[in-house]
Amino acid sequence: MRNFVVVGNLATTTPDFSLEDIPGTSGRLDILCRCVNSAFVLSHGIRHDVRIFLVLRGGEDPKTVCLRGRDLRHLNPDERTTAALLKKALGLEATDRWQRSTPGIYVRTRGLADLAVLRGDTIYYLREDGADLREQKVGGDATFVLGDHLGVNEDDEALLESLGAKIVSAGPASLHADHCIVLINNELDRTEAERGYE
Amino acid sequence: MRNFVVVGNLATTTPDFSLEDIPGTSGRLDILCRCVNSAFVLSHGIRHDVRIFLVLRGGEDPKTVCLRGRDLRHLNPDERTTAALLKKALGLEATDRWQRSTPGIYVRTRGLADLAVLRGDTIYYLREDGADLREQKVGGDATFVLGDHLGVNEDDEALLESLGAKIVSAGPASLHADHCIVLINNELDRTEAERGYE
Repeated sequence: MRNFVVVGNLATTTPDFSLEDIPGTSGRLDILCRCVNSAFVLSHGIRHDVRIFLVLRGGEDPKTVCLRGRDLRHLNPDERTTAALLKKALGLEATDRWQRSTPGIYVRTRGLADLAVLRGDTIYYLREDGADLREQKVGGDATFVLGDHLGVNEDDEALLESLGAKIVSAGPASLHADHCIVLINNELDRTEAERGYE
Repeated sequence: MRNFVVVGNLATTTPDFSLEDIPGTSGRLDILCRCVNSAFVLSHGIRHDVRIFLVLRGGEDPKTVCLRGRDLRHLNPDERTTAALLKKALGLEATDRWQRSTPGIYVRTRGLADLAVLRGDTIYYLREDGADLREQKVGGDATFVLGDHLGVNEDDEALLESLGAKIVSAGPASLHADHCIVLINNELDRTEAERGYE
């Protein structure tokens, strides 16, 4: 299973944003929508072996939305329809237990530190000055943590360090999170192709 | 200079589409908007050494829109504002000479076969069964030709073959054009970093 965790530092936790101006009204939920596209979208379908956790911090208390490829439905590649799916999820009365919004989309309160996926698998934290992803032989069950345009904060970094996260970089240029996810998926595709899809 | 050429088989040549439903009203101009993002967007700025040519075939006669990083302005990463820039360009009375719409965005009639960029540089044509991009040592001036969700047609393939285009693939999975462009940019970034930005 490929897991992506993206921190949306200002991303709204309510459905009160406009689909006509996503970047300007949602705390840059557009960035997270593009990450969802990069995580799942293939030419003729979606990746079933992917989950993405969007940590939304633009409210009083954080919320996390999880999209799971195994049962994900209604995902189109464009930003607006993804934002509409997130809007629907954020309209639910969230508790600290995962609750289904539409097929494959789940929401709860709580943030990064409470994600079980950070406890189990190999953790990679994407940062510009990290070791080259291509040298890491990534594969198998792995979790990749990325920040939005504001990165992640010092507390997050301390948490990731305490969990033994490896700091990796996707290449020499400074890239948005969604482009990093494309590069990570490609690296994992190549590893799996070499291993013959164990 | 990095050049990308993307064929939009059904993409509108007029501004008569809705920014509220880009995929449904524009012949999938949303795909081309995402290609523009992949071609140019960096964390803190845009790539100045990139041009992208969008070949629009959804009208009676084709049009081509060129975006040039050197003088491109007003580009935001989200799909909608890119679509709005394209809408403005398509509102101009196009002729067979390049005409400026907004800074860095040019439009004219004519299609793929008339692109000068296909005559000069090394040409790569992206196709799933191509040779691995990573083995090609891409770098320097190069032009990459990609199709939208419908690919390119037989005439295009014959043209590309006559021009000596190398058929390459971005990886084992079948990807959308915008994801391929992210992978190509990464490959070129790595080549340039190795060469010390000649």
